[in-house]
Amino acid sequence: MNKQQQQTRTAIIIGAGLVGSLWAVYLSKAGYAVTIYERRKDLRKTKMSAGRSINLAMSYRGWKGLDDVGVGDDIRKIAIPMYGRTMHYLDNSTSFQPYGNNNQAIYSVARGAINQQLMDIAESHTHTQIHFDEECIDVDLEGGKAVFRNTQTDAITTAEAEVVFGTDGAFSAVRYQALQKLDRFNYSQTYIEDGYREILLPANPDGSYKMAKETLHIWPRGRFMLIALPNFDGSFTCTLFMPFDNHKYCFNNLKTKQQVDDFFEDLFPDFYRMMPNVADEWENHPLSSLAIIRCFPWTHSKVALVGDAAHATVPFFGQGMNCGFEDCSVLWELMQKHDHNWAAIFKEYEVLRKPNGDAVQDLSLKNYLVMRDKVADPDFLLTQKIERRINYLYPESYFPLYTMVSFTNIAYTTALEKGEAQEAMMRQLIRKNHLTPDTDEATIDRIIHEFMKTNSSSK
Amino acid sequence: MNKQQQQTRTAIIIGAGLVGSLWAVYLSKAGYAVTIYERRKDLRKTKMSAGRSINLAMSYRGWKGLDDVGVGDDIRKIAIPMYGRTMHYLDNSTSFQPYGNNNQAIYSVARGAINQQLMDIAESHTHTQIHFDEECIDVDLEGGKAVFRNTQTDAITTAEAEVVFGTDGAFSAVRYQALQKLDRFNYSQTYIEDGYREILLPANPDGSYKMAKETLHIWPRGRFMLIALPNFDGSFTCTLFMPFDNHKYCFNNLKTKQQVDDFFEDLFPDFYRMMPNVADEWENHPLSSLAIIRCFPWTHSKVALVGDAAHATVPFFGQGMNCGFEDCSVLWELMQKHDHNWAAIFKEYEVLRKPNGDAVQDLSLKNYLVMRDKVADPDFLLTQKIERRINYLYPESYFPLYTMVSFTNIAYTTALEKGEAQEAMMRQLIRKNHLTPDTDEATIDRIIHEFMKTNSSSK
Repeated sequence: MNKQQQQTRTAIIIGAGLVGSLWAVYLSKAGYAVTIYERRKDLRKTKMSAGRSINLAMSYRGWKGLDDVGVGDDIRKIAIPMYGRTMHYLDNSTSFQPYGNNNQAIYSVARGAINQQLMDIAESHTHTQIHFDEECIDVDLEGGKAVFRNTQTDAITTAEAEVVFGTDGAFSAVRYQALQKLDRFNYSQTYIEDGYREILLPANPDGSYKMAKETLHIWPRGRFMLIALPNFDGSFTCTLFMPFDNHKYCFNNLKTKQQVDDFFEDLFPDFYRMMPNVADEWENHPLSSLAIIRCFPWTHSKVALVGDAAHATVPFFGQGMNCGFEDCSVLWELMQKHDHNWAAIFKEYEVLRKPNGDAVQDLSLKNYLVMRDKVADPDFLLTQKIERRINYLYPESYFPLYTMVSFTNIAYTTALEKGEAQEAMMRQLIRKNHLTPDTDEATIDRIIHEFMKTNSSSK
Repeated sequence: MNKQQQQTRTAIIIGAGLVGSLWAVYLSKAGYAVTIYERRKDLRKTKMSAGRSINLAMSYRGWKGLDDVGVGDDIRKIAIPMYGRTMHYLDNSTSFQPYGNNNQAIYSVARGAINQQLMDIAESHTHTQIHFDEECIDVDLEGGKAVFRNTQTDAITTAEAEVVFGTDGAFSAVRYQALQKLDRFNYSQTYIEDGYREILLPANPDGSYKMAKETLHIWPRGRFMLIALPNFDGSFTCTLFMPFDNHKYCFNNLKTKQQVDDFFEDLFPDFYRMMPNVADEWENHPLSSLAIIRCFPWTHSKVALVGDAAHATVPFFGQGMNCGFEDCSVLWELMQKHDHNWAAIFKEYEVLRKPNGDAVQDLSLKNYLVMRDKVADPDFLLTQKIERRINYLYPESYFPLYTMVSFTNIAYTTALEKGEAQEAMMRQLIRKNHLTPDTDEATIDRIIHEFMKTNSSSK
């Protein structure tokens, strides 16, 4: 791009969440004057609403999205590594399972903190402005125009730019007001049977952590689970995922304080000892639902959906934000490739990313079963251990599913497909060789070397 | 119900289409004062819009829905039986395949004509009123209230009743304004690759039909098809179903008059001879899209969706109206069973009907492949012939898929499941016994008797 063109291009971003704020940084660097419109208040000036702290797990794709535009290190300062899962069993025993080899980790970050940081970075670019309290009430796809109503003053603003991005999340107004009105727009919102409620496990009085810090804690209970992610202040953000109803253990059966108290005491005894007042805190935290949202097309004329607005997922692979940041990396590459020709960029973007949006949703649904159930299964843990070992011995040739998703940017579609094939291969390997959790490492290594020889020669 | 209660109950129906009008008759007979609100003009007072004549195929479930409330005979007067399919091949040859045994038929009815008739019947009940030009703009699910804006005067009306029904079709305002705003409401709209365009093939100058009358005409062309249903005036309503784009033969490749002319001359030579001016008529008829719409729940508090509003389907099994009328039969039975306790009726209705709504959509999608492709395949025709023969010899024990769907009220879910199992059995039977279109009837009968013996003894 010529220097003269700098900042003469214009873009509107609707939604100043994680993806919108990051994408503004990209566009600013690419020479766009960016205006962001956000329905909510400036969260840097308001107190976070209770019970919605929400921790996210940043992994490779997220970091890549940040690093590609040079802001990864700012975020690393507010991220806590989690090197594996710590499972908490009913008998109060625990076990630890690393996520990968060589200290590979995913990172706990507070949604509020990262969003504030990204908004600050976006606004540090002279030509980026964020307007808050602006609700999008209409979008003109062909004209690149959007209409906003200020939630405080009711004032109506119409904005126009060369290109408009809807980064306004699962219940995107851009999608609802404009794309959804197109003929032949495919759309689905599918709620799972389960909801979630967050609970904050506070730090010890001296500020220290009540459990191991650099790990993701899981209490796998078959049909439901509790998880905990560390915060900087010594607390953990805990989330209980469970069916709304129709099960022995479900939110509908936890109506009274006594029921909540009994439930935690019986099902999560070690957690209950750390937080005997859990039942007092219960009602302060909202019960939320969980949905998969799919749609197509993601773009039309001058407008594109990015992140959750295009492909909101359930959170069980920790990939929602990561996938949204990867959308930014991909759009950025396409912007170079097609030299700001948005018609060409959008066409390739949606064809490339839609299957990956679907795949990350499928992976997320599958991983709920892993987290709440399989991680308590010795056979599954053995499989994971063997796969991690193969990856250690053949780091260039074999990637376990979790590794593909969290520690590479292999397409989600490939990860899903390969992951299923590998799962079948591992089952066979274990059965054929009568492997058990007690099989010694030398034997396992020998079998792995044989397996990899056969496997690579058969290609 | 006590006589005193008559007409003291109240119901609102939103949408005076086929299902809404019929359901009003049921409710009137059950003692409800019914008010219907319809967004469109009274079609009895307006000319039908061009190119949207739309013929429907009434089959068993539709007739049952009408007969259960005693109005079937009124509709029989405006229905033309179609005893089978007439396939038109590229070489101008044709073949006829009956739909069933013993003159079983589906019936061609004009949507406009049946709708007018049902509105007349509904209004003949003293306590039923239809208000036209009333667009539903809000629904209060708990309160049983609905708000309407008159499209002519902009006047706002709020109506209230014990129970409210949304029979307002695929793009239901009741669903959109109210149910879709509920947390955890599942919803999907899925457009297929194909669209359709209607063409009217006029009668001969003397009013006679240009093709055989009492049959459904199909020009199966693999990836697309033309069909024709007879009208009373000697004309046929013809519909071309075809992909919008991305195929050799698609609507996007029929842009000029010359292209349309060539297309019909090359692909439907016998049709082209009957209607050489088809290209002149082309632009007068809109191109329409085709979608499957799924949602759940169908009911909430005092409000229920019925017919297309709950389960709009693609039209390839001719079951959209039939399934909607069956909804009425089922609601009617549940109304007796639960003695007007709508909470209980709605609960059972949606649990009972939702799987059938899904199944009729799956069946419809599968039958597109049958109509546009398989009916030109000798193996498929042989299968159908054998199945029809089994049904003839064992009329109580074996129902081909088409028979289950069109000539019984076996649950759509059962039809779908059994149909798939039977398809596999038939393939095996033909292969094992080396049956061909030329196999003589005595041999076929012998094999059928063996098959049924084995089949029934293995149960």
